[in-house]
Amino acid sequence: MSGKVLALCGGVGGAKLALGLAHIVPPEDLTVVVNTGDDFTHLGLRICPDIDTVTYTLSGLANKELGWGREDESWDFMEALRALGGEDWFNLGDRDLAIHVERTGRLAKGEKLSDITADFAKRLGIEPAIIPMTNDQVATIVDTEEGELAFQHYFVRDRCEPVVKKVRFAGAGDAKPCKAFQTALQDPDLAAIVICPSNPLLSVDPILALPGLRKMLEGHRVPVIAVSPIVGGKAIKGPTAKMMAELGHDVSAAGIVAHYGNLLDGFIVDQQDAEIAGSLPVATHVTNTVMRTLEDRTDLARAALDFTRMLKR
Amino acid sequence: MSGKVLALCGGVGGAKLALGLAHIVPPEDLTVVVNTGDDFTHLGLRICPDIDTVTYTLSGLANKELGWGREDESWDFMEALRALGGEDWFNLGDRDLAIHVERTGRLAKGEKLSDITADFAKRLGIEPAIIPMTNDQVATIVDTEEGELAFQHYFVRDRCEPVVKKVRFAGAGDAKPCKAFQTALQDPDLAAIVICPSNPLLSVDPILALPGLRKMLEGHRVPVIAVSPIVGGKAIKGPTAKMMAELGHDVSAAGIVAHYGNLLDGFIVDQQDAEIAGSLPVATHVTNTVMRTLEDRTDLARAALDFTRMLKR
Repeated sequence: MSGKVLALCGGVGGAKLALGLAHIVPPEDLTVVVNTGDDFTHLGLRICPDIDTVTYTLSGLANKELGWGREDESWDFMEALRALGGEDWFNLGDRDLAIHVERTGRLAKGEKLSDITADFAKRLGIEPAIIPMTNDQVATIVDTEEGELAFQHYFVRDRCEPVVKKVRFAGAGDAKPCKAFQTALQDPDLAAIVICPSNPLLSVDPILALPGLRKMLEGHRVPVIAVSPIVGGKAIKGPTAKMMAELGHDVSAAGIVAHYGNLLDGFIVDQQDAEIAGSLPVATHVTNTVMRTLEDRTDLARAALDFTRMLKR
Repeated sequence: MSGKVLALCGGVGGAKLALGLAHIVPPEDLTVVVNTGDDFTHLGLRICPDIDTVTYTLSGLANKELGWGREDESWDFMEALRALGGEDWFNLGDRDLAIHVERTGRLAKGEKLSDITADFAKRLGIEPAIIPMTNDQVATIVDTEEGELAFQHYFVRDRCEPVVKKVRFAGAGDAKPCKAFQTALQDPDLAAIVICPSNPLLSVDPILALPGLRKMLEGHRVPVIAVSPIVGGKAIKGPTAKMMAELGHDVSAAGIVAHYGNLLDGFIVDQQDAEIAGSLPVATHVTNTVMRTLEDRTDLARAALDFTRMLKR
């Protein structure tokens, strides 16, 4: 594959494909734009869960068991915090804390989130560019039958239990895509845009909600493909399926295609969904999308890029 | 000993005597007022080294080897912070971090330092009152031959190496003693005021620099005593001796008496300094002041209170 690749992603599932891409695309040719709608301030610390998951995944520091945070983590801080009466519904590992504390300190000094993210990535030995979708604050708000909830309260504290009525992205209308994101989109060498298998409602929609972004992708000269986060009617991880059902979407690969609409030039479904591939209103490639091993990740990344080469706009 | 006791102290040495007092004075009768001049904001966290040392010491959590921080501490945060390029000259243990993060969060929500300190103490099972000298910001600034340094930069980062020309307490002139400190001073049941063996220049002077405080102590109806932090011409710990010499003080128990002046009704020197006891211009008691064991601490506390009973104003 020649040409540059722009990946849009959220946390866990998206980060897995980003890692696959990082193994097969020359680092200077890969840009990973990450959702920041999940970001929040907790205990005075600015926490960017998706950026951190991507950073830890690409640097090899990710905790593969938990699916978030760092491996070889210790939890002494949380234990001491609990003893002091601190809020303990959001687990922060001792090592993981460093990224939140250091980021918060640098933001307070006026550094941009994008510069901080790039510096952390460099220090952790990551070569591809990791870019927050925006340096402005966008907050995913989940309107539930129990009222509006800040995203992490819905997601972590309340374990996605409240029934969702609507999702909105506060601040997205006034947020500017990061400069490096804009540059990547306009790069004449860009050859493919890959929407990673992240939750479309929570992880990809905030990116698409940035002013002009969806239109820009719809009209882009390079193919835009997505990898389905739904396999056999279920989400690999997280609340994607439950939320889609609550919001009236068809909980299937077809429902994902319907959600992205005319944004997509191509779609990748898992082999478990092979029978519906022919009925989707978009060019579809069937392969294994369940990424258990590093080989699964690189195989899927290679399949995605091979697929985009066959697509023309 | 009947009657209430008010102890003024800084960190390590002072905290040891405070612990001794806590073992022999009924908890409702003991108030420990702590220096906050060393407090600073680091990595966005509000750190109160003396309050924390007293809190950890009275709750049995103090790291006896290090003389600061918590026992059974882990250092994963610092290692991760270093990898991200964070400032690493001030060591923050994983458990210790909890007190700084939780305090910073509560201060940001508008809670008072005195309320936060009291709540932490209660949660850690401490019964005597631990009170910050003030809720207002006072910052010890050390003027050295290399220029003015914020206290922790002088103390920790530069290891007290620069030669000191002057010490000042920025903000002290506008700071109000905490209400509980004022109440303790005016309590009709108060029977003794004990200045713990902390560094007079760094740990006690900030307290005395609060408006009206020194005058109030000088004219107080109850005896004010101090325990010498200098033994045999040397400080037990820290830069007291070096600083006293640089600032032209006599580095001896006599120099401490001269520094406190007419504030004192009584003074306790170590048995190593027994020969100079008779020559001091204040009532003097000789005993062991080097506190290695818990018994040393309670013995010294008992000696201090017995001594005040014999003093009349």
